[in-house]
Amino acid sequence: MTEAVEGAVENTEYDVVVIGAGPVGENVADRARAAGLSTAVVESELIGGECSYWACMPSKALLRPVVARADARRVPGLSAAVQGHLDVEAVLAHRDAYASHWKDDGQAAWLDGIGADVYRGTGRLTGTGKVTVTAPDGTEHRLTAQHAVAVCTGSRAVVPDLPGIADARPWTSREATSAKEVPARLVVVGGGVVGVEMATVWQALGSEVTMLIRGTGLLPKMEPFAGELVAEALTEAGATIRTGVSATAVHRAGQDGPVTVELDNGERIEADEVLFATGRAPRTDDLGLETVDLEPGSWLTVDDSCRVEGSTWLYAVGDVNHRALLTHQGKYQARIAGAAIAARARGGPLAGDPWSPHTATADHAAVPQVVFTDPEAASVGLTLAEAEEAGHRVRAVDHDLAAVAGSGLYADGYRGRARMIVDLDREIVLGVTFVGPGIGELLHSATVAVAGEVPIQRLWHAVPAYPTISEVWLRLLETYRR
Amino acid sequence: MTEAVEGAVENTEYDVVVIGAGPVGENVADRARAAGLSTAVVESELIGGECSYWACMPSKALLRPVVARADARRVPGLSAAVQGHLDVEAVLAHRDAYASHWKDDGQAAWLDGIGADVYRGTGRLTGTGKVTVTAPDGTEHRLTAQHAVAVCTGSRAVVPDLPGIADARPWTSREATSAKEVPARLVVVGGGVVGVEMATVWQALGSEVTMLIRGTGLLPKMEPFAGELVAEALTEAGATIRTGVSATAVHRAGQDGPVTVELDNGERIEADEVLFATGRAPRTDDLGLETVDLEPGSWLTVDDSCRVEGSTWLYAVGDVNHRALLTHQGKYQARIAGAAIAARARGGPLAGDPWSPHTATADHAAVPQVVFTDPEAASVGLTLAEAEEAGHRVRAVDHDLAAVAGSGLYADGYRGRARMIVDLDREIVLGVTFVGPGIGELLHSATVAVAGEVPIQRLWHAVPAYPTISEVWLRLLETYRR
Repeated sequence: MTEAVEGAVENTEYDVVVIGAGPVGENVADRARAAGLSTAVVESELIGGECSYWACMPSKALLRPVVARADARRVPGLSAAVQGHLDVEAVLAHRDAYASHWKDDGQAAWLDGIGADVYRGTGRLTGTGKVTVTAPDGTEHRLTAQHAVAVCTGSRAVVPDLPGIADARPWTSREATSAKEVPARLVVVGGGVVGVEMATVWQALGSEVTMLIRGTGLLPKMEPFAGELVAEALTEAGATIRTGVSATAVHRAGQDGPVTVELDNGERIEADEVLFATGRAPRTDDLGLETVDLEPGSWLTVDDSCRVEGSTWLYAVGDVNHRALLTHQGKYQARIAGAAIAARARGGPLAGDPWSPHTATADHAAVPQVVFTDPEAASVGLTLAEAEEAGHRVRAVDHDLAAVAGSGLYADGYRGRARMIVDLDREIVLGVTFVGPGIGELLHSATVAVAGEVPIQRLWHAVPAYPTISEVWLRLLETYRR
Repeated sequence: MTEAVEGAVENTEYDVVVIGAGPVGENVADRARAAGLSTAVVESELIGGECSYWACMPSKALLRPVVARADARRVPGLSAAVQGHLDVEAVLAHRDAYASHWKDDGQAAWLDGIGADVYRGTGRLTGTGKVTVTAPDGTEHRLTAQHAVAVCTGSRAVVPDLPGIADARPWTSREATSAKEVPARLVVVGGGVVGVEMATVWQALGSEVTMLIRGTGLLPKMEPFAGELVAEALTEAGATIRTGVSATAVHRAGQDGPVTVELDNGERIEADEVLFATGRAPRTDDLGLETVDLEPGSWLTVDDSCRVEGSTWLYAVGDVNHRALLTHQGKYQARIAGAAIAARARGGPLAGDPWSPHTATADHAAVPQVVFTDPEAASVGLTLAEAEEAGHRVRAVDHDLAAVAGSGLYADGYRGRARMIVDLDREIVLGVTFVGPGIGELLHSATVAVAGEVPIQRLWHAVPAYPTISEVWLRLLETYRR
């Protein structure tokens, strides 16, 4: 398909060009290839993306030993053996292995295996269906997409523009998940998922962690009790959580000296490292969006097939469309978008109704998330506040997870809570939140119930095995029926 | 409601009389009371039943430390700390606490709290709606049930009638869950749930366990790989599993000497204790069934409201009806039967269609079970063999659980497997089996899918959170669609 044009620059035509080879881009490419579409994938960093090297994989590799030890400490007959510290070197080595030592050979081979062509370099749009890739050595490749360009460039950590911050070399999620040494003192700015997960890890590995939270609590996007229970456990583990404070300046003393964070109340906190876990921005600033009448640096608004609004050929899949900044949800969108691209390439009609194979309806109704802290916090669908704001007539049904036999058996002194949001008009479940040890895998039961719109009356027949923590479902349903 | 009759014997009238105060009887009573029906509960042993004192509670209290240690051993940074033995005394003390030290004050208080009258003694039917309770001191109470008698007497362990067995004092599930000392050598006869769970416990607590299996493998009611994976792990833990052998005789040397088990191949195995986990029989032999034209000692056949076939007033709920010998399923039946009793008492029509509030449809379609071994084995609905035998046009979709990112993060060297049985005509899931560490709480996702009859196309939108073991759902669905 290659034709010689303009000197050294090739012009290569594909059915689909994917910009960004994280899990989302990989899945779009996979679906396109499975549909028989020729596919190019452009990547400027490592194939495998943020998730593989600086997010899900390393963070969970760091968190699992911490959570497993916390669990083991609550088990009679085992607790005494695990009172000591974790083997930090073993944990970090495990993390390195799970981050593939920041090498992407395996994932490159996978893309090769599905028959996608990989272009290393920065991909920029240059017009309708056109992408120019600038390789690290300056070589340019011009790619033309017959059917679709999918932007899957993801997001990057946002660090606030504070005095001194550039010279202070703060950690973002990348440094927090890939650090080779345990800082003696770590300040974590932000109480979202990255903040609480990384505070959990480094406190357990030996850091003295101080969290600085602008608002009133942790995990503000979840039901309030999630943040409360995680804060309680983090505090018991030795971390300090300061709410209602903001960092106003950051200074590092010399090249390797300590860092000082100034707060809006005039206080100063000294630490060895400071992590800013304060949000994400779309990686769309150097993407040539201006050539297709879109705003560089903006989130890309898409319809439910993940096609950019107003475009016939441009898709934005994963974090970059701002629908749900989670790897699994981006991969879901990739499956949907891939199917939609293939259907449109065949000229066939698109099933456009909710929950169709070409409609990412779950983005609105059933986004799951597990926060791998101690306790774990997991939710799917709407919180009470979200459901009320959306105008649903709902009831929140709460239950103490500790009052379930399976919970007490799982962990001595179990603490946890569950909430189910019921749509009173449709008698279905709009959202569920579980917070407690050992509930990570339980979430998917709620995801099936919410995405499946399984009527409450039918859930009554979904019997939880005894004695598992899952029995909380029975208690929630009983409470609802009373 | 008491009226004096025949000397010292009272004749007391209730709306509902429940025989057996295990979890099933308790739940029938709870539902009856919630419907405003006067209720008597008769119990000859401990209120709380088999589950509370000699089954679920003590067995899971024994198993949790074993499984938690197995899990912790597979976690980098933690494994070295947990190579030693469990603290056996702590484990047994924990078990004692979970069995409430074999005292039922708490559960008696609960029954009192819901306003049910408790009669201690043996309840026997004496005719339509009539139950006579013989207390331990010989006092008799005659109870009359206006609307329903519910038999919830459960089942007992069956010990085969082998030469020498009575004098050998073998363990059944009761002794295996309540033993105060660790036998140096334990023979376990039978490879069902009780057999594998108790072999797991006692091997981990220090016994040298030998399992004697008549058939070809463990857990014969589950998909074949369940028994294979559990056998592999038990063997690695040091247990010996002998398949294709039967015990033909059992002898104990003297009062406290070792026990010798003779096999059908002529071999003899000496041990300190022998556990017979060889099946269950209904506790209906001393129930007065002959007075209502039923066969003493038989399982009681019921319809989907748990009413005994041919009767207008007699219900059999839980193990005793032989539909599904599991505490949670008996409790489910109790909820259904309680609702049916209440509806009939009100004279109202019964919703008799499948999955109605008065129909225990899940008994046929969605019975869940978690075996709390290392690895855990969990299933719901039909196995491939069962689905084929029932005449469904099905496909079994398998996936290696170790190939899921969340599994490897959960445990180094993860081994496990998942199978989904798809009804090809209805495109719904008829059954799911998971075997592997950490999958116990994952089962309920399958239970919701199977009981909810959620279409495969909709399950595609139930996104598993990354990176959890739940992601196996995505792999199963992808495999099915290929």
